[in-house]
Amino acid sequence: MEEILKQVQAGNMSVAEAMAQLATYEELGFAKIDHHRKKRQGFPEVIFGEGKSADQIEQIIQSIQTEGSDILATRVARDKAAVIQGRFPELIYNETAELLYSRQKPRENENGSYIAIVSAGTSDMKVAEEAALTAEAFGSQVCRFYDVGVAGIHRLFNNIDGIRNASVSVVIAGMEGALASVVGGLVSHPVIAVPTSVGYGANFHGLSALLTMLNSCASGISVVNIDNGFGAAYNAVMIDRIARNANAPQ
Amino acid sequence: MEEILKQVQAGNMSVAEAMAQLATYEELGFAKIDHHRKKRQGFPEVIFGEGKSADQIEQIIQSIQTEGSDILATRVARDKAAVIQGRFPELIYNETAELLYSRQKPRENENGSYIAIVSAGTSDMKVAEEAALTAEAFGSQVCRFYDVGVAGIHRLFNNIDGIRNASVSVVIAGMEGALASVVGGLVSHPVIAVPTSVGYGANFHGLSALLTMLNSCASGISVVNIDNGFGAAYNAVMIDRIARNANAPQ
Amino acid sequence: MEEILKQVQAGNMSVAEAMAQLATYEELGFAKIDHHRKKRQGFPEVIFGEGKSADQIEQIIQSIQTEGSDILATRVARDKAAVIQGRFPELIYNETAELLYSRQKPRENENGSYIAIVSAGTSDMKVAEEAALTAEAFGSQVCRFYDVGVAGIHRLFNNIDGIRNASVSVVIAGMEGALASVVGGLVSHPVIAVPTSVGYGANFHGLSALLTMLNSCASGISVVNIDNGFGAAYNAVMIDRIARNANAPQ
Amino acid sequence: MEEILKQVQAGNMSVAEAMAQLATYEELGFAKIDHHRKKRQGFPEVIFGEGKSADQIEQIIQSIQTEGSDILATRVARDKAAVIQGRFPELIYNETAELLYSRQKPRENENGSYIAIVSAGTSDMKVAEEAALTAEAFGSQVCRFYDVGVAGIHRLFNNIDGIRNASVSVVIAGMEGALASVVGGLVSHPVIAVPTSVGYGANFHGLSALLTMLNSCASGISVVNIDNGFGAAYNAVMIDRIARNANAPQ
Amino acid sequence: MEEILKQVQAGNMSVAEAMAQLATYEELGFAKIDHHRKKRQGFPEVIFGEGKSADQIEQIIQSIQTEGSDILATRVARDKAAVIQGRFPELIYNETAELLYSRQKPRENENGSYIAIVSAGTSDMKVAEEAALTAEAFGSQVCRFYDVGVAGIHRLFNNIDGIRNASVSVVIAGMEGALASVVGGLVSHPVIAVPTSVGYGANFHGLSALLTMLNSCASGISVVNIDNGFGAAYNAVMIDRIARNANAPQ
Amino acid sequence: MEEILKQVQAGNMSVAEAMAQLATYEELGFAKIDHHRKKRQGFPEVIFGEGKSADQIEQIIQSIQTEGSDILATRVARDKAAVIQGRFPELIYNETAELLYSRQKPRENENGSYIAIVSAGTSDMKVAEEAALTAEAFGSQVCRFYDVGVAGIHRLFNNIDGIRNASVSVVIAGMEGALASVVGGLVSHPVIAVPTSVGYGANFHGLSALLTMLNSCASGISVVNIDNGFGAAYNAVMIDRIARNANAPQ
Amino acid sequence: MEEILKQVQAGNMSVAEAMAQLATYEELGFAKIDHHRKKRQGFPEVIFGEGKSADQIEQIIQSIQTEGSDILATRVARDKAAVIQGRFPELIYNETAELLYSRQKPRENENGSYIAIVSAGTSDMKVAEEAALTAEAFGSQVCRFYDVGVAGIHRLFNNIDGIRNASVSVVIAGMEGALASVVGGLVSHPVIAVPTSVGYGANFHGLSALLTMLNSCASGISVVNIDNGFGAAYNAVMIDRIARNANAPQ
Amino acid sequence: MEEILKQVQAGNMSVAEAMAQLATYEELGFAKIDHHRKKRQGFPEVIFGEGKSADQIEQIIQSIQTEGSDILATRVARDKAAVIQGRFPELIYNETAELLYSRQKPRENENGSYIAIVSAGTSDMKVAEEAALTAEAFGSQVCRFYDVGVAGIHRLFNNIDGIRNASVSVVIAGMEGALASVVGGLVSHPVIAVPTSVGYGANFHGLSALLTMLNSCASGISVVNIDNGFGAAYNAVMIDRIARNANAPQ
Repeated sequence: MEEILKQVQAGNMSVAEAMAQLATYEELGFAKIDHHRKKRQGFPEVIFGEGKSADQIEQIIQSIQTEGSDILATRVARDKAAVIQGRFPELIYNETAELLYSRQKPRENENGSYIAIVSAGTSDMKVAEEAALTAEAFGSQVCRFYDVGVAGIHRLFNNIDGIRNASVSVVIAGMEGALASVVGGLVSHPVIAVPTSVGYGANFHGLSALLTMLNSCASGISVVNIDNGFGAAYNAVMIDRIARNANAPQ
Repeated sequence: MEEILKQVQAGNMSVAEAMAQLATYEELGFAKIDHHRKKRQGFPEVIFGEGKSADQIEQIIQSIQTEGSDILATRVARDKAAVIQGRFPELIYNETAELLYSRQKPRENENGSYIAIVSAGTSDMKVAEEAALTAEAFGSQVCRFYDVGVAGIHRLFNNIDGIRNASVSVVIAGMEGALASVVGGLVSHPVIAVPTSVGYGANFHGLSALLTMLNSCASGISVVNIDNGFGAAYNAVMIDRIARNANAPQ
Repeated sequence: MEEILKQVQAGNMSVAEAMAQLATYEELGFAKIDHHRKKRQGFPEVIFGEGKSADQIEQIIQSIQTEGSDILATRVARDKAAVIQGRFPELIYNETAELLYSRQKPRENENGSYIAIVSAGTSDMKVAEEAALTAEAFGSQVCRFYDVGVAGIHRLFNNIDGIRNASVSVVIAGMEGALASVVGGLVSHPVIAVPTSVGYGANFHGLSALLTMLNSCASGISVVNIDNGFGAAYNAVMIDRIARNANAPQ
Repeated sequence: MEEILKQVQAGNMSVAEAMAQLATYEELGFAKIDHHRKKRQGFPEVIFGEGKSADQIEQIIQSIQTEGSDILATRVARDKAAVIQGRFPELIYNETAELLYSRQKPRENENGSYIAIVSAGTSDMKVAEEAALTAEAFGSQVCRFYDVGVAGIHRLFNNIDGIRNASVSVVIAGMEGALASVVGGLVSHPVIAVPTSVGYGANFHGLSALLTMLNSCASGISVVNIDNGFGAAYNAVMIDRIARNANAPQ
Repeated sequence: MEEILKQVQAGNMSVAEAMAQLATYEELGFAKIDHHRKKRQGFPEVIFGEGKSADQIEQIIQSIQTEGSDILATRVARDKAAVIQGRFPELIYNETAELLYSRQKPRENENGSYIAIVSAGTSDMKVAEEAALTAEAFGSQVCRFYDVGVAGIHRLFNNIDGIRNASVSVVIAGMEGALASVVGGLVSHPVIAVPTSVGYGANFHGLSALLTMLNSCASGISVVNIDNGFGAAYNAVMIDRIARNANAPQ
Repeated sequence: MEEILKQVQAGNMSVAEAMAQLATYEELGFAKIDHHRKKRQGFPEVIFGEGKSADQIEQIIQSIQTEGSDILATRVARDKAAVIQGRFPELIYNETAELLYSRQKPRENENGSYIAIVSAGTSDMKVAEEAALTAEAFGSQVCRFYDVGVAGIHRLFNNIDGIRNASVSVVIAGMEGALASVVGGLVSHPVIAVPTSVGYGANFHGLSALLTMLNSCASGISVVNIDNGFGAAYNAVMIDRIARNANAPQ
Repeated sequence: MEEILKQVQAGNMSVAEAMAQLATYEELGFAKIDHHRKKRQGFPEVIFGEGKSADQIEQIIQSIQTEGSDILATRVARDKAAVIQGRFPELIYNETAELLYSRQKPRENENGSYIAIVSAGTSDMKVAEEAALTAEAFGSQVCRFYDVGVAGIHRLFNNIDGIRNASVSVVIAGMEGALASVVGGLVSHPVIAVPTSVGYGANFHGLSALLTMLNSCASGISVVNIDNGFGAAYNAVMIDRIARNANAPQ
Repeated sequence: MEEILKQVQAGNMSVAEAMAQLATYEELGFAKIDHHRKKRQGFPEVIFGEGKSADQIEQIIQSIQTEGSDILATRVARDKAAVIQGRFPELIYNETAELLYSRQKPRENENGSYIAIVSAGTSDMKVAEEAALTAEAFGSQVCRFYDVGVAGIHRLFNNIDGIRNASVSVVIAGMEGALASVVGGLVSHPVIAVPTSVGYGANFHGLSALLTMLNSCASGISVVNIDNGFGAAYNAVMIDRIARNANAPQ
């Protein structure tokens, strides 16, 4: 803004032009931040695919590609994905996670910082893969620790060192969701807990696991929406990026 | 009934007398079962003290003592207990558990069968003691494993052998109630889970722990009402008695 | 562990080998318990079929059969079962209960201990059969008492002796779920109550029966998740096994 | 209205007077019905005492007495009742039911029709007495069957004949509320079910009993609000009055 | 029973025969009541069709017809009904109400007693017709007052006299369910309220109308389960029968 | 009424005729108001299409057209609309909003009063268009401000002047519904908030946005049912009409 | 902004000064709007008294009075109000509504526009008075129509003309909340509905009335939070002000 | 472990001693981790004061001080705190936050990393201060941005730069909780959202804000339990510590 004012003062810019720029500034100010954030951090643009037609998604992809950004579309059902891939064959589709995304460039793991994706059962894999692939699409390294639920807690303990060494954990569990509390008590980094709708009866579509995680007696746990693997990964990547800076060789 | 009919046939009993006895049979049939169950199993009569006045409780105690049974009154607030003890000084009052009960005769632990009372935190002690004292009042041996919640899971593992050797476990936890699942995955005997109302916010007065326990991914867990230490103990004693017979020296 | 240490002390085992064994011990310790429990108790491995593809289930069956264990798969829809039976024709499929399981060896009923499976209405039969067949697959004797709901309570009374003589009852009811309380007041053994989602409107998919059973005014009742016939049977078999030991001829 | 119009036509009534009367008719039309209903049926005016001050209740009583009606005030706490009785010493106060009401004239029981007030436990007595005293204040005969809950179902069976002979039953139960279903299955007259807030934990202040009663598998049961003994009695009296006419000697 | 005992005393009946009869008595005692109730009151046997296969329903119909009773099957979907009518062409199917029932004999309306079936909107017609046809199948006269919801309250007032003259009203409403309160304030006979699941959003599948009706500020209203037109009719018929006796010419 | 009475008094009207007119008055009184309201305000008749068959909707359209009114049918699925348009080809169908309506005459925007339709995301467009088209069908000018949710609040600020200048805003948002509070804090006219069921998990079908809007810390916000774009528009049009009168050139 | 830029261009303002003003503009921009809105509309500043100490409220009053604004404090308990009045004796306290406010100047009712405050029962008076006094404090005329609930609907009809002539109605009802639908069907202006927490049992602290109002089958109704008389009045005043402009003599 | 085995192999350690150490290792393994975590990170020991007596808290403080750790006790009511300070006068008590804690050593703010504590209203201050003081007790720098709720969004924008420069934000809001979404859309660091129970009516004790935050349309938000300021701070400190390492001068 100072620059614009100086131009006006110097007579290099008319009042009308300055007003347009300042108005734009007000508008693009936020937009810039928006862009800045996306560009600087290398976040691809994200499309929430649920409730959008294949055609709508294609238009958005077209618009994003024009900006030169990578694509990440969540909750894209298989049949819609097939249609879209017909037009954008360069996109990869993961059926388990229902994700459609741009091929990632190989990442070099210079400093070893990674996110642990920990899931309780095989039925939680859809959400777990949504989280894992999202994190990878955002440029973080990921280690998967699947099917380590508390009903057979030795499975967790056999993997606990790998989990402990991560910069942040995403813990995914349905049914009673107890895994988040147990992991939270065993690690010293932040845990992002994702309740899933896996289960039946008094599970009430994920309410049970959600309440479990919100009431966790272990500290260091925060929670995202039921089945929101994407959101958990987004949080985890934010933290992992800080950690990567911290760990970076100097 | 056959006996009565034979008496009628033999002319030793009038029709009127037989009808009275058969009617009584119908009525006392159930009542007998009731008495039989209480007497044979050595269960003291149980008074649910909540919502009853000291005076009402005293009258019931009077009536039970006339039958020669022991007393167990649950949820008796301290001030009511003081009044009642004024009249029945032989009764013991446990303030933590809000239980008022007859002094127990020393039990001989011939075969070592016992009930594990496992609780997550110190705030669950009221419910845990209600369960432990109830089980003792019903004649079972009890081992207490308190404050072994999953936030610091080493506390549980340090005690797991003692829990595993019990005939049945009562697991008491508030907040997210994850302890029941973890214990259920580590022992091979039945687990009676008691959610407690300990917690705040999205705990919703015990709903969180209740749902957790009902949705446990570990097998062998059944659940009683929130804060129902008495009911859990009642179930556990039933199982422990079968186990004591099974273990009895022959 | 002592043995391993002695071997190390004696120079018969290298430090590396000892560490591997101790690590394995830590890991297999839990796994052993796991195996021990399954093997000793004759529990077949259980597969939760819901949300798994026929292919996934086949792989797990393959893996379990390699270990020499029996198979019990719950919640397997008819079409998936048909595919799986194509590959494993020796498995039996029960369509009502949606169970797929290994043929059982004939059980000798030496001491007459059995589990009562008590259900309120014909619509509860799916859950009741899941419980009954599970209990049989786990080696217990079962007596079925179906369609004895409280709306016509004489049906229950006509069967009450058979229920009373069981070692444990599984009581299955939807709608208002009152049957569990009535049975609980008439028997002196543990009752495992299973609310079902049978009903409509203010039944709220089983919530009504669930709350009824949790609040039962009869003692000796514990509850499992809505429609969880498997879980109830698992609990009941644990208790019946203790009872069978107790009743065994000596 | 025809009469008024004829008077106008005949010149016996001015247009203004007719309009006043017709306007009054419109207004008093409803009011008359209101009065008619109250007067003809001998219903005393009813005051809902909760949330009203003693002074407000006194003013309403004053107004009702001026009309010559009897008084029935529900949910009047003891201390408020004491104040009001200071001014209206002729009113009777029942502390259990928190009812304040006019002394009833002796009723002659010509045809034996009566309402059965059936309650599950002693803690339900407040609601049961609200129902019983209300029904009596409205002129019906009442038989009380208290403490006949399903946990000891023989208590119910010992009283079932007396319940069956009533014209209508009011069934009052808290906790799991199963009594309504059992009574509904044993009688052939209408059952008005009243859930009470007696209980704790997953009772959720009466929700458990309410859902139980709404989902009853027995036919002939309808339900009123939690703890609404007054409303149940009001319904029952309506039915009992029809039955009294039906039974009346001719 | 007295008769049996006298026969035994007189030597006309053996003890074994008497025991069989008394046992039968105990069993058939309840069954008899059951039959007595159904037969005397002319209630056809009722089949809850939801969740039963066409084949199962056919078997039950076969069994009921053998007893010589009429048929009333509720919640029978159109395709199932078509199959069943193929075998029992004498049955009538009403598609709106999803009822399948025996043709009724013409009823003579000697004393004019009838049930008012009052519904708020055209979307409530399924439930309203279930109630109306059930009441007719049970032998009551019915008057239908449909589409008289409170949004255009003049529709109700235009019909209020017809409603007032009924012996009992069944009031059916979805969305906010206010119609029950308004009718309850305008009539002096019992009102059976049926909340329906008609609506969307914060209606929560009928919860809104259910709560409205339970909390009605008008007296004389009792409530059945959401969409339970059958249950409301069953209650109404019970009351209408008493009224018909009361009104009968003598 | 006075007129009628005078006619009677003057002998120009018989009592019978007067009674018919007064009765009609009572009945048509409400109906007239109804008509008056619809006609005077230019509201087309509205048909709630959900749960009605194409045939039923056609009959209602026929009846409304006979009265000469315009048509507005909400929640008409595409296939039903196609059938109806076959018969009424003059009707317009908007697939996004599922609205079927009469072509509007061009409105002259004399005084510039308009309704702002503000929506948070593209998934809310169905509800937003239901609101916008309804308002237009009722004769109001509408400005659409779509996809201005708070996650990128600059989008809202870029449009805030256009929103501020409206006479009333309809704010439509799903997920967490925060947009209503933010708009409410920035404008000085009434805000009608519409929660939508857009979202998943702990959104609970719109409950989340509903509660958000009811608890808004900004003043001047009132709320309609989840997804009720029609209802919000109806309210907004009522207010906009007052504003149009206020703004009208004089 | 243009002015500032011209000053800069003309050299009358330094860049630094311009930046400060523009920054201030950004900040005060919103603040100005805020002030503008309050000042221009004559809204007194509003203090939400719940959860604030008497001392905190006094400080805020002090600050507001310094700005020369009137005071309106809601939800101020009696004892707190007494303390505050000790310091600000010019403030008026209404105990029923728990409002503390500045004495209003007499309003001239030039054009007769007024808000109808309609309440169902005497227990709703606290909320009704909060609404009425708030509206008066904001400068609107108010007519009170209290105790006109639907249980005795003639009370409403006797007052319907007065309600119909208002510019907007605030309808306040607890228990089942049906009054809003009935009023909404009888008037042609906007209705702001306020559910109250008056009631018990299945009322669930106002949830029942809230759902009723949200699901109203009458159009033209929008809803505010439970017991939020203030918020309803705020909405109503906004609409009434438009109406006053519309009605103003010209 | 390797070290121990080598000592055994070398004969420097007996088998018994090794077993004790390994056993201890197993037990203290977890405990060590626990200690390690607390010590290394400078976390003081935390006591959850709710439901503990002053005496119990004193004992725990005594035990912690013996270990040389600092004290942080949450949810300590004023009267309890007064008693405890009588014995531990060196502890500081903050009445707003109900925190009792050891005096902190001055922190040097070498690299400027800090946590933004952002709250919506003055009523949220208790939770906000619990978070702020906890974070300070754990060694982080904190900037407070209080009373910046969305109803007057300019307050937020005036402070947005300060919030954006934090390493992590804790956003605290009651009522509708919209602030978290707005902040989440404006910053590029993780946001920990804390719903508070501030509000009334359809707020349902914080449920409204909780659901809002879980469903946030802005990415980068995770949620903790209602009113859990402590838990949010714990999470934030974990992240801020990573950031401090990242920012540290090298």
